[in-house]
Amino acid sequence: MRKVYLMTPGPTPVPDSVRRTEAQEMIHHRTKEHSAIFGKISENLKPIFKTKNPVLTFTSSGTGAMEGAVANMLSAGDRALVPIAGKFSERWAEICKAYGVEVVSIDIEWGDVAEPKIIKEYLDKDPGIKAVFVPLCETSTGTVFPIKEYGEIVRNRADTILVVDAISGLGACDIQNDEWGVDICVSASQKGLMLPPGLAFASVSDKAWRFAEQSNLPKYYFNWKKALKSLEKADTPYTPAVSLILALNESLKMLNEEGIDGVLSRHSMLADATRTAMRALGLELFSKYPANAVTAVKVPDGIDGIELKNTLDKKYGVKVAGGQAHLKGKIFRIAHLGYMEKFDVIIAISAVELTLKDLGYPVELGRGVRAAEERFE
Amino acid sequence: MRKVYLMTPGPTPVPDSVRRTEAQEMIHHRTKEHSAIFGKISENLKPIFKTKNPVLTFTSSGTGAMEGAVANMLSAGDRALVPIAGKFSERWAEICKAYGVEVVSIDIEWGDVAEPKIIKEYLDKDPGIKAVFVPLCETSTGTVFPIKEYGEIVRNRADTILVVDAISGLGACDIQNDEWGVDICVSASQKGLMLPPGLAFASVSDKAWRFAEQSNLPKYYFNWKKALKSLEKADTPYTPAVSLILALNESLKMLNEEGIDGVLSRHSMLADATRTAMRALGLELFSKYPANAVTAVKVPDGIDGIELKNTLDKKYGVKVAGGQAHLKGKIFRIAHLGYMEKFDVIIAISAVELTLKDLGYPVELGRGVRAAEERFE
Repeated sequence: MRKVYLMTPGPTPVPDSVRRTEAQEMIHHRTKEHSAIFGKISENLKPIFKTKNPVLTFTSSGTGAMEGAVANMLSAGDRALVPIAGKFSERWAEICKAYGVEVVSIDIEWGDVAEPKIIKEYLDKDPGIKAVFVPLCETSTGTVFPIKEYGEIVRNRADTILVVDAISGLGACDIQNDEWGVDICVSASQKGLMLPPGLAFASVSDKAWRFAEQSNLPKYYFNWKKALKSLEKADTPYTPAVSLILALNESLKMLNEEGIDGVLSRHSMLADATRTAMRALGLELFSKYPANAVTAVKVPDGIDGIELKNTLDKKYGVKVAGGQAHLKGKIFRIAHLGYMEKFDVIIAISAVELTLKDLGYPVELGRGVRAAEERFE
Repeated sequence: MRKVYLMTPGPTPVPDSVRRTEAQEMIHHRTKEHSAIFGKISENLKPIFKTKNPVLTFTSSGTGAMEGAVANMLSAGDRALVPIAGKFSERWAEICKAYGVEVVSIDIEWGDVAEPKIIKEYLDKDPGIKAVFVPLCETSTGTVFPIKEYGEIVRNRADTILVVDAISGLGACDIQNDEWGVDICVSASQKGLMLPPGLAFASVSDKAWRFAEQSNLPKYYFNWKKALKSLEKADTPYTPAVSLILALNESLKMLNEEGIDGVLSRHSMLADATRTAMRALGLELFSKYPANAVTAVKVPDGIDGIELKNTLDKKYGVKVAGGQAHLKGKIFRIAHLGYMEKFDVIIAISAVELTLKDLGYPVELGRGVRAAEERFE
């Protein structure tokens, strides 16, 4: 017998009721029945995004919504500010370049964030910068970025918008889009929303819609003005992933019953317990500002990071993520994201203890679990 | 009690075993387990496409793959030949225009096709045309296009490719991509492949890959060269719709067990029976070249087409499609596409008979069903 525990930062586990909803008989998307559901999910996403702005839904992975943010807001030759502090903040730069948008990049050490004052300096020096692209949670390093502070800097600049990748962050790390002055917040289904991958989202502010009027970059499938027009009739321009829309209706019901602030404090508790446990085991966290979605832990000296990840998987069925790019083998990442409760992180911590013991690392069995339990108490 | 019968040209009914596979526990996409499945579906799509070329899989609706064909093959200012004979052939023109590709359009009466000799004339007159964009089955009119003949015209022109939208056609209307010299064939999951919407596909010839080398249009999420590079490792550049990939593995197993030619002849039989039945009821087909995916029927004089469609739906639970654009209320479209057998079309025909009777149209009950049964015999 082999039981598997999915502790990766997306896809995350999908609750049984959501999977059963996904498997229901197919319905046609140009019907009142589908409109009623699509209208409902579009409204029920708003409290999760903490916004009154429209939230657009696309059939794609999160990257599609990131590309849409660039293609719908900017024009060729525009300048964008992109602090690069990991694999996913790097993606903003790649997309901008693919569209002929000039990237003003700030190299940040992976695991760190762009200090708000640096962002301010760049914008003061170059007020022609049209957009600032940042992650809420940089998934590759498990780092949460100071979006509120960025919002204070950008919100009063008429010619600059703040665009946030909250793909792995949404539902785990607080983001108050309206309150903080975020213009665009993109996310995806397979993380905090407890769904399979296949849907992407974007909340869009009035200020951003004015940018969309000026944009001349080519777009068709990810044309946001068209998506907004359809949304007004609770519809989509192109056939949506109907089974995932139905499933989303179910998962949003669960999330909104708990309430977004309840969801966030649950993630805060799980993340804090995980961090406390890792430290109790003598391990070091990788990130300077650890996110509540995923905890990145340094592989201790003398231990092979690939072997650690493989032992967790093959011997204990616990699937965590390794490091990406130059961090391969150097860190492992435990996600406590989405459909997760106390005993999910207890499992992860216990598996880490057993694995460290297997690999000959000096560890007191139960010490991490105890630290987590004390945190839960 | 209300039983519903989905007879629309996408989404189409999804077999129970496919839906149960879709609902299985989530797995991570960067694993050997997922690679094994992704590699398998990429191979098992080939006999369906009748190609040895790579078949790319995208998480999007079919329109995403259509856009990808334009963005990956052409450059701004290139010219493309687009015969427009319905809503979906029109979409090729819209996408080209969105990307600054010059459209040489041929207006065709809806329900008709572009005669091959017209295509030849345009290409002879203007050898600089880089691509010909056509549908296999124009869903809005239920018309099958002569792709084989187009292939004969395009295949020996080094500077022109043939791009086919087989979104609703694949698995219902024969398309022999390699044999006929089709360079790009795009399709989607929610039609003949018996899946929910959310996946799109494109088979790409060697000649087309050479065009991709020249293309300078912006693309990122739909970057086909990147998708090909990932496919070589049985992977995708971005998180795929995992639950739909798992489901596709199941539906491809069913289709390949039947064999693509068996699948096609089943569709041919169902389509022929539907056409025969409609004629037996005194109704007229809309298309000059009726496709085996969907039968478009003219609403008879004196009958309100909207009321006909609504009665079929509300009173009998049979969901057919109406006409689009200027055909609204003028035609109705019965799909016999995907997970369909004899008694599915018997249901549709019977419901049409009962509905016509309800609406006061002179109809001999059972006459259409009898004609279909005679065809099946």
